[in-house]
Amino acid sequence: MSFAAVDVIRTKRDKGVLSDEQIDWVVDAYTRSAVADEQMSALAMAILLNGMTAAEIARWTAAMIASGERLDLLTVGRPTVDKHSTGGVGDKITLPLTPLVAACGAAVPQLSGRGLGHTGGTLDKLEAIPGFGTKLTNEQFVEQLSTVGAAICAAGEGLAPADRKLYALRDVTGTVEAIPLIASSIMSKKIAEGTGALVLDVKFGSGAFMRDVADARELARTMVELGKAHDVTTVALLTDMEVPLGRAVGHSVEVEESLEVLAGGGPQDVVALTMALAREMLDAAGLADADPRAAIDDGRAMDSWRALVRAQGGDPDAPLPVADEVERITADRDGYVATMDAYAVGVAAWRLGAGRARKEDPVSSSAGIILHRKPGAAVKAGDVIMELRAEDAAKLPAALEVARTAVTVADAPPNPRPLILDRIS
Amino acid sequence: MSFAAVDVIRTKRDKGVLSDEQIDWVVDAYTRSAVADEQMSALAMAILLNGMTAAEIARWTAAMIASGERLDLLTVGRPTVDKHSTGGVGDKITLPLTPLVAACGAAVPQLSGRGLGHTGGTLDKLEAIPGFGTKLTNEQFVEQLSTVGAAICAAGEGLAPADRKLYALRDVTGTVEAIPLIASSIMSKKIAEGTGALVLDVKFGSGAFMRDVADARELARTMVELGKAHDVTTVALLTDMEVPLGRAVGHSVEVEESLEVLAGGGPQDVVALTMALAREMLDAAGLADADPRAAIDDGRAMDSWRALVRAQGGDPDAPLPVADEVERITADRDGYVATMDAYAVGVAAWRLGAGRARKEDPVSSSAGIILHRKPGAAVKAGDVIMELRAEDAAKLPAALEVARTAVTVADAPPNPRPLILDRIS
Repeated sequence: MSFAAVDVIRTKRDKGVLSDEQIDWVVDAYTRSAVADEQMSALAMAILLNGMTAAEIARWTAAMIASGERLDLLTVGRPTVDKHSTGGVGDKITLPLTPLVAACGAAVPQLSGRGLGHTGGTLDKLEAIPGFGTKLTNEQFVEQLSTVGAAICAAGEGLAPADRKLYALRDVTGTVEAIPLIASSIMSKKIAEGTGALVLDVKFGSGAFMRDVADARELARTMVELGKAHDVTTVALLTDMEVPLGRAVGHSVEVEESLEVLAGGGPQDVVALTMALAREMLDAAGLADADPRAAIDDGRAMDSWRALVRAQGGDPDAPLPVADEVERITADRDGYVATMDAYAVGVAAWRLGAGRARKEDPVSSSAGIILHRKPGAAVKAGDVIMELRAEDAAKLPAALEVARTAVTVADAPPNPRPLILDRIS
Repeated sequence: MSFAAVDVIRTKRDKGVLSDEQIDWVVDAYTRSAVADEQMSALAMAILLNGMTAAEIARWTAAMIASGERLDLLTVGRPTVDKHSTGGVGDKITLPLTPLVAACGAAVPQLSGRGLGHTGGTLDKLEAIPGFGTKLTNEQFVEQLSTVGAAICAAGEGLAPADRKLYALRDVTGTVEAIPLIASSIMSKKIAEGTGALVLDVKFGSGAFMRDVADARELARTMVELGKAHDVTTVALLTDMEVPLGRAVGHSVEVEESLEVLAGGGPQDVVALTMALAREMLDAAGLADADPRAAIDDGRAMDSWRALVRAQGGDPDAPLPVADEVERITADRDGYVATMDAYAVGVAAWRLGAGRARKEDPVSSSAGIILHRKPGAAVKAGDVIMELRAEDAAKLPAALEVARTAVTVADAPPNPRPLILDRIS
């Protein structure tokens, strides 16, 4: 069956419900370029403003999966479980979590992305490790899951090509923030990659794409339902992203922090979230008896990390790059750190060189921010709160300007915020 | 000043008001292709769904005018006045009206369009006249206004190029029906053409682009304000398009009907609307003493028509093409014609070959429909209500199918509908 693209656009523009046939046609025709970019972007804007029903989102996701190949991970010989975060500032959790869960007996197929805007991307962080390669063929990916139990790489060209095209289009047309499109984009890739179970870290707050907790909850529910409809055991945690995660924001600095966690240390919030997500992943994979704490304490998690890095061409013993140009933000009075706005910190790291304006831009591996004191900490006037690092000194002033807006010092400590707000399954 | 297109799109997406600088930038950058089609279509959809303030529409219109050249008609030596109709079925009014007003002493600069969808276009109708050319240079256009007092042609490439590009984009992206975009499109061309006064025929009802009278009224008000802001005396009539205008729908058949009007006859509704619009145009041009009825009765209007046709290469005495393949719709019972849906009649004419699916398609000059009886007429079973004519007999069945849905016969005549509902100035 064939439809005029304009009729499909008009249906959604006029708050109608797209039929299964319209969705199948428009996703397929767009992948084949029979529907033009300017038609899909108008449709995406209409979807953003007028929404989609649960049935429309499910069909749209299925059509995106059907636009490409679907991996079969049954040959891996272990239960497979993946984790996806909707993105935040200082969110390095994939780095310690993936080898930890692999060390406990699951296989973790991690197809990851790059940073865009104020959030960092897992692949950019890993590329701070000398030699680390993020491109694997499907065969290499499946093979490494069997041998190492984990792989962290870019999604292959063949998986959900409709999503690849639509994602790039949304980025330049102001249509990123549509819940139906975010949910179908994430879930089509995860389902096509063949994982048996999936744990979602859906973030809300200033540093997340969903600032509002109600939006984040709706996105989480939508994705959990999509997973179930495709026989992927799916659980979501709603987690706070008002403040950056951990004490490091950047690439090499976040790898360092991840190694601390795998060595049994690390900032409390990063450890807590890593452990909570590990527990969810192991339960979802049917490994309820596995003990991630023990896997850190006895060194199996670190061994798994080293095997993963080596398998992807990296040297786990090579020193990580360090940026030489430094500026510091200090407390201007005695008191307590009251706020540390995640978005402003993310923008500051971006301005230091850690982020990119366009997909094809390079990033600085060593640029980043160290958070010496986080909200709740007592400070005296002159104490260092934040340290900004760049390769290029010229990048410091603009970063400093926005970083200063992130921090306030007050007479009393702020009320503590729970890191994990809710669990949706 | 320069803006990221995404920021402009987001502003309107999130129901904000675009700044003057944002509007100037995005219209200019789109004309230069620095803003991509897929970005402008997302913005157009956001404008359609979230609207624009009067100030935004005014600035957008000014930016579209500024994207190209603006004609100066002061050398014409007569007061200039144009008419624009928002489009309908059987709307041939421009054909008798333009020479009539010219015969009364005004100059009528008529930049017209082609039909798209179910409505006919003035240029397609005129091209039914053997030899008639619809392309004039700016110099020919101004010269003909001085000598003949009227010219009906396509807009030159240099006038409002932003609108030309945006109009084509809206047509394929489901964003035609946005009042701010319709108003700025029409008014930017009319103001750039240099007319001193403008009368708008804003149609509502099944055969119009605005089905709802409230939408048509808002469009009319918006355009009148835009005209005034640019020192163009502007008046709008809100007119009914629930039923086709006159008794002919097509190209050569509408030229025939227009000649009847110029000869002093013609259907009552076409005559009434022509006379009302002529009165408005002459008043707006400062020619309150001119008498259009006299100009028809004494043959000056017909002389003006013949001069216009000759000036554009046409032969006013050449026979018009006639389509040989005919089907008729007859009354299935005694009664009164109760309804004659303009949209269905327009679609039927389109299916007969009078319309085009894409801008570059040719049209059949002779295909069309003759309405033998209009709503209110008494009929007996078997009386002919409509006659469908095509060059290609294969086109008749599909046209007949939809034309039948246009007509109902009832026991009592319908309540008469006023042709002109309101005047907005």
